Amino acid sequence: MFGSKDHLTTIDNHLYIEDVDCCRLAAEEGTPLYVTSERRLRENIRRYHRAFPDAEKYFAVKANGNLAILQVAAQEGMGADIFSAGELSLVRLAGIPRDMILFNGNSKSEKDHIAALQAGVRISVDSNEELEHLARTARNLDSEAEILFRVNPNVSPKTHPKIATGLRSSKFGIPAEQVAGTYKRAMELEGIKPVGLHCHIGSQILDTAPFAEAAGRMMDITRAVVAEGGNVERIDLGGGLGIQYQPDSTAPLPSDLAKAVLPVIQDSCRDMGIFPQLILEPGRSIVADSTIMLTGVNVVKRAHVNFVAVDAGFNVLARPMLYDSYHHVLAANRAEEQGEETYTIVGPICETGDVLARDRRLPRLVRGDTLAFLDAGAYGFSMASQYNGQPRPAEVLVSEDRWELIRHREDESALLAGQTIPSRLMW
Amino acid sequence: MFGSKDHLTTIDNHLYIEDVDCCRLAAEEGTPLYVTSERRLRENIRRYHRAFPDAEKYFAVKANGNLAILQVAAQEGMGADIFSAGELSLVRLAGIPRDMILFNGNSKSEKDHIAALQAGVRISVDSNEELEHLARTARNLDSEAEILFRVNPNVSPKTHPKIATGLRSSKFGIPAEQVAGTYKRAMELEGIKPVGLHCHIGSQILDTAPFAEAAGRMMDITRAVVAEGGNVERIDLGGGLGIQYQPDSTAPLPSDLAKAVLPVIQDSCRDMGIFPQLILEPGRSIVADSTIMLTGVNVVKRAHVNFVAVDAGFNVLARPMLYDSYHHVLAANRAEEQGEETYTIVGPICETGDVLARDRRLPRLVRGDTLAFLDAGAYGFSMASQYNGQPRPAEVLVSEDRWELIRHREDESALLAGQTIPSRLMW
Ligand SMILES: Cc1ncc(COP(=O)(O)O)c(C=O)c1O
Ligand SMILES: Cc1ncc(COP(=O)(O)O)c(C=O)c1O
Repeated sequence: MFGSKDHLTTIDNHLYIEDVDCCRLAAEEGTPLYVTSERRLRENIRRYHRAFPDAEKYFAVKANGNLAILQVAAQEGMGADIFSAGELSLVRLAGIPRDMILFNGNSKSEKDHIAALQAGVRISVDSNEELEHLARTARNLDSEAEILFRVNPNVSPKTHPKIATGLRSSKFGIPAEQVAGTYKRAMELEGIKPVGLHCHIGSQILDTAPFAEAAGRMMDITRAVVAEGGNVERIDLGGGLGIQYQPDSTAPLPSDLAKAVLPVIQDSCRDMGIFPQLILEPGRSIVADSTIMLTGVNVVKRAHVNFVAVDAGFNVLARPMLYDSYHHVLAANRAEEQGEETYTIVGPICETGDVLARDRRLPRLVRGDTLAFLDAGAYGFSMASQYNGQPRPAEVLVSEDRWELIRHREDESALLAGQTIPSRLMW
Repeated sequence: MFGSKDHLTTIDNHLYIEDVDCCRLAAEEGTPLYVTSERRLRENIRRYHRAFPDAEKYFAVKANGNLAILQVAAQEGMGADIFSAGELSLVRLAGIPRDMILFNGNSKSEKDHIAALQAGVRISVDSNEELEHLARTARNLDSEAEILFRVNPNVSPKTHPKIATGLRSSKFGIPAEQVAGTYKRAMELEGIKPVGLHCHIGSQILDTAPFAEAAGRMMDITRAVVAEGGNVERIDLGGGLGIQYQPDSTAPLPSDLAKAVLPVIQDSCRDMGIFPQLILEPGRSIVADSTIMLTGVNVVKRAHVNFVAVDAGFNVLARPMLYDSYHHVLAANRAEEQGEETYTIVGPICETGDVLARDRRLPRLVRGDTLAFLDAGAYGFSMASQYNGQPRPAEVLVSEDRWELIRHREDESALLAGQTIPSRLMW
């Protein structure tokens, strides 16, 4: 019905996710609401397992930090790419094994290093300077840090500049030409055990060529490290595989990614006589299309253009405003009606930039209708804020014909959380 | 010492806010930390009172929703511009009188209307369509809504396009040429009592001419409404006065704004023989420069440029990433040292766009130093998120030589708030 999204169908003019009526969800759980198909989530993970039977797949928690979703990922055999001590506690709670967790990030505090060392997870070291800091902390704790180095491979991934992370100019990683030297120094450092190399070239990448290019660069660097006597037991290619946000676009599948990168890596490694563990860190391609965001129509306003003002703004779904991203939109309670009108869909936030979708053909809408934003599972709730005094939305997990709340809707009391008022200000 | 910011000084190489050492604040309360000078906040409000002795000033809560700050605003005689039911409960708690509250917004739900009607606050109606919805709800509650109409004056304020709200193309307001007709219809509607007109042309506006232009348009519209027999008891010109983010820039003061708009309004109103209450809705110019954001240096990284990686990213201060905004940066523990290096200041977030400041001359920095981002009080904490598993920062209020926590730092448990896990997913 909706291209490859076989977890979405329509019955009697209503949009269904698996066997659950989205209109019922909106009525019973309220809007805005994030709704995830468990089946689709599991399928997306299994597709990676089939394409890369020998690689470890670390879910990028930044894309979606919901514990139920992390638990599904754990059940399906994923590890985790984490970016903070907060994400570390989430993945530990979800039962992801410590041996399959990589603590990433370009700005770790001493506390972050201690949390990683005490949990016994590997650390991706972003710079020469971090290496020295970490070594000192590890020695202080009488511990040894197993590390990978985040490499800046200088590859241009043709995506939105804010999320192109593998360019020379980005803040991430050690310049490619310095890595072998840094690796050598690390081998001599007490408290440090270098075990591999890591890169991540960007997000929402729709072409496999940059991945093949990055894999090639990683092999060049591996060769230089091995020549210096380094042990490269792990090679982490990061995440970044794009998905099909526009219905008429195409996106590469995990199997396409495998075809692009595996030969490069296997050939080079065979040449070098090393057999490192391959690691991937997919976020978006695991969780984005498993989830829709339901939002209620408050006002249909005829001005110089036709506006549909809904109850979700960039406080709920920041991607359109941040990256000019496209999310496909359906009318959940008019799912079989023809597009008769052209609407610009806006949120309740006080800024002109609070536009979720422009010039969409949709059935004629009225107050009380429900819209579904597709592909909202990655960088959706995880970027939500309470801007404009808006409590954050709820999340539900759907499996076949039942659903369960996996995060309660905040109410206004959430705006008060943590606030204390100096008594001299009160009468 | 810092231009007009007389709440900031240096003593013995440390930055002080009022009489409190910022290094002590960072050491005792941790970083990232928002720190507000109560004196500066009160001064900013009083400056508006002096410039506009007869106007009501409604604090734009979206700029800063901290209760202690709202309480100071209430003590100083401000009302409130609110954008949601959540903000309504904040300003009620802070003791702002109902007669000085305006419920704004382009996408209000029935619940929002009910909350406003039950609280007895005025409502700014954004469209013809909202007018009909509100009338119905008011009649259902046997209530009467006192309303202003949000007018789209079609004025170009020369600011960042995402926050230029008075352009014809923006989502806000009723097109100027329709207002008189809508007003007339509203006078006949049961459940509705139109009492005035409202506009807001944008934010961070550094020139008073657009305000004068908007005031002129509002007078033209008022004339048309009066000609139709309408009562215009309140004229709300919104907020938007810019502040001096760059040390060598200039920004108009409330007194400059008064000089630009008061003659326009007074002359026209005298002509028409009406004496409406003038309302202003300043946010940024009240609270931005009262507050600094302290952030700790985690890594100083020499790559193709010199990066300083700090513990605050766009999760804490979104403005630089959203609007390419400039915030002036000082080294709080090296406040009297010369700028010797050029640094790009980046946060801990996984995106290349997580850059807080580019190419700044600063003293030579090391891990453990503290940086102060100035003018962080407006659209700072209020836009904060937990993206990348980062708990949100604390806020403190400084008065002379003492400080008080006004919002506790979140810890990792805040990431779990509201989460529930379907039991079938647990062993
Ligand atoms: C280091 C790292 N790995 C993996 C990811 C996940 O990327 P994606 O969601 O595009 O797969 C990110 C995203 O920012 C990242 O920074
Ligand atoms: C209706 C309205 N009034 C007032 C303001 C406050 O603007 P500023 O903070 O620029 O003074 C805003 C900001 O978005 C607004 O939307």
